[in-house]
Amino acid sequence: MNLKDLYSKSTAGMKTSMIREMLAQTKGVPGMISFAGGFPSPATFPVNTLNELFQEVVTESGSDTLQYGASEGDNELKKALISWENVSLDTDELLITNGATNGIYYFTRTLINPGDVILCEGPTFLGSVVSFEASGAEVISIDMDNQGIQLDLLEDKIKELKSIGKTIKFFYTIPDFQNPTGITMSLERRHDLIKLMQKEQILILEDDPYGELRYSGEKVKSLIEIARNEYNDKKIVTTVKSFSKILGPGLRMAYVMADKELIKPMCSWLQKVIVNPEGVTQRVVAKYISKGYLEEHIKSIREFYKPYQVAIIDALTKYMPNEIEFTKPEGGIFIWLKTKKDINFDELFSEIVKEKVCYIPGSKFYPEHYEQYNCLRLNFSYPTIEQIYDGIKILSEKIQTELSKL
Amino acid sequence: MNLKDLYSKSTAGMKTSMIREMLAQTKGVPGMISFAGGFPSPATFPVNTLNELFQEVVTESGSDTLQYGASEGDNELKKALISWENVSLDTDELLITNGATNGIYYFTRTLINPGDVILCEGPTFLGSVVSFEASGAEVISIDMDNQGIQLDLLEDKIKELKSIGKTIKFFYTIPDFQNPTGITMSLERRHDLIKLMQKEQILILEDDPYGELRYSGEKVKSLIEIARNEYNDKKIVTTVKSFSKILGPGLRMAYVMADKELIKPMCSWLQKVIVNPEGVTQRVVAKYISKGYLEEHIKSIREFYKPYQVAIIDALTKYMPNEIEFTKPEGGIFIWLKTKKDINFDELFSEIVKEKVCYIPGSKFYPEHYEQYNCLRLNFSYPTIEQIYDGIKILSEKIQTELSKL
Repeated sequence: MNLKDLYSKSTAGMKTSMIREMLAQTKGVPGMISFAGGFPSPATFPVNTLNELFQEVVTESGSDTLQYGASEGDNELKKALISWENVSLDTDELLITNGATNGIYYFTRTLINPGDVILCEGPTFLGSVVSFEASGAEVISIDMDNQGIQLDLLEDKIKELKSIGKTIKFFYTIPDFQNPTGITMSLERRHDLIKLMQKEQILILEDDPYGELRYSGEKVKSLIEIARNEYNDKKIVTTVKSFSKILGPGLRMAYVMADKELIKPMCSWLQKVIVNPEGVTQRVVAKYISKGYLEEHIKSIREFYKPYQVAIIDALTKYMPNEIEFTKPEGGIFIWLKTKKDINFDELFSEIVKEKVCYIPGSKFYPEHYEQYNCLRLNFSYPTIEQIYDGIKILSEKIQTELSKL
Repeated sequence: MNLKDLYSKSTAGMKTSMIREMLAQTKGVPGMISFAGGFPSPATFPVNTLNELFQEVVTESGSDTLQYGASEGDNELKKALISWENVSLDTDELLITNGATNGIYYFTRTLINPGDVILCEGPTFLGSVVSFEASGAEVISIDMDNQGIQLDLLEDKIKELKSIGKTIKFFYTIPDFQNPTGITMSLERRHDLIKLMQKEQILILEDDPYGELRYSGEKVKSLIEIARNEYNDKKIVTTVKSFSKILGPGLRMAYVMADKELIKPMCSWLQKVIVNPEGVTQRVVAKYISKGYLEEHIKSIREFYKPYQVAIIDALTKYMPNEIEFTKPEGGIFIWLKTKKDINFDELFSEIVKEKVCYIPGSKFYPEHYEQYNCLRLNFSYPTIEQIYDGIKILSEKIQTELSKL
């Protein structure tokens, strides 16, 4: 019996993660300076407060939180989130999920028939792309500029796809400190995007894992805030927010805000997939918010990461050759680097690893057939400040050498 | 924009849970005696020990357990499970999941193309059936006797399905204290089932949420124990086990044991759906096992439930008319009641609710088109001993009245 012969088509067609395989080369190498990660710094996890709250929750409400719970999520957590958020939300417009990817999965399951199109920014978060592709969707990316998605390109692509009879279900975006580029969509672009999607009757899925991690500049209103508060439109934007970069990804806590006619089927999928979110952790997060810890903690995380953001932008400015462009994000944990010159950063990867520096090649952040190779992602939440300067210097010199060969 | 028009086919075709709607009638009614539940008693949750362990885990390994973790599960939990289990397991033959349904979902996703057949016991656990149906599978149930699945019927059905070109991917079974019948598959039947499935090249999915809840009689070896230890076959049986009825369902902790060629694609699905299991809870469960608490705790749960099992069998024996047959499970939390007479327990439900007793009609535990109406499920982990006697008396009298009308 060959078990592989029994796999479903969608399983047999799944790609292995090239990122994982690439990073396997870098693991356990002493002295490796890694800009490849996407993990928050464990120094930002509020261990002591969480410890108190776990204790409080298990002791005070163990028989409740250890029992089966509501599939749509713990009511106390929902109440805390409703008072925390800047949009007015009914209880049935919220779904608690096992991390943001989990919410994105239910949204995709709710809407996608094989062959339907999902549009996204190019580059974008690979985890979402592979999840979209596994649903049988055709994933098409649209280029960005420094204000976010390029709406003229988006509109042309929609026209083209509709003319050949394609069904476009939604546009996926990470408007704040995007993964991998660090780009934040401008306010004007957000307004125009919403108006375009309303005209085209295509939903927007707003993924917001980094929005709270702003180290400079002014907050830009989220897409759901604009849609609900300024256009009185509850349907067009669905937003997924996560506690992974705030309290710790190990907690697997995220939530979805959407029209109740989307929350309802998403919740039906959740019932079939995880039955209900974890009870103790939900209540811990509820208390973390309702006791007022969250606001203070976010301030401290911003202060923690800011020096790293300052250092990497400073190091890049100092060391990178002029042929290299890089984003200057005001928050998040990623910077995007690209060049008009003919450098293939997939090929350079093994070379630079030998010099004990690693990044993720930009091509890994595009859906199949849309790959670009003249770009890469740098993470600045994992290396130390010293490593940032050292690593960027090594990387810059390597790139300089490559450029001189052209 | 009508959001419902955007639903995928599988979403639009999802059925609402009739059980939920039925039970809505019974909620908050003072004095209601409910045999309808499926929840473990919160008195069995080891609140104090869990409290200590949550504290220990967050304090000692917060930066580790609050971080992203391995998709296939925490290594310490895997180690604890490997030493706990009665089969020899490699690390890559284990997957930690967000509850048992979550593991079943990945197994189904790994194997099922729309139109493939899943065979199961009739009646069976509804949660699995709806999850199977949502994958596009055709779910077909086979009748049981008091030793479990009827193998002659199963073999005939397989022959019939194969002759019309159907692909049968797996047979789903709950061999110990089955939900909803309480039936435990006999040892002989287990051997014969494995041999039949080996011959037919059809996988077995063994769902084992209640196996540890044995109040009398002798443990019967699990299907995976028999397959691995006696037939040296790692492929034929995949087993899902859950901590929901032992430590508390709110923890959403379960695990899958399977051949590594099934664990690998299941883990790929897990990555797309939840990224990784919750970190803190996994480590808590690991410590619960490795510190030796689990064995003692299981003993205490058995002692806790036994009087309820004794009471309900006693009450049924005392009060039920002779026309009614019921199972006498040696463990678990359910009893199945049926009659050859023409009583429709779906119709009787609203009547009996008026007398402040409720159950779940048997028809709800069959896949579509296979419903039977002359049966019902009783749960005995939720009502008190007094309520068990009172409730069974009321139910018996009602059934007697119905019988006298025939």
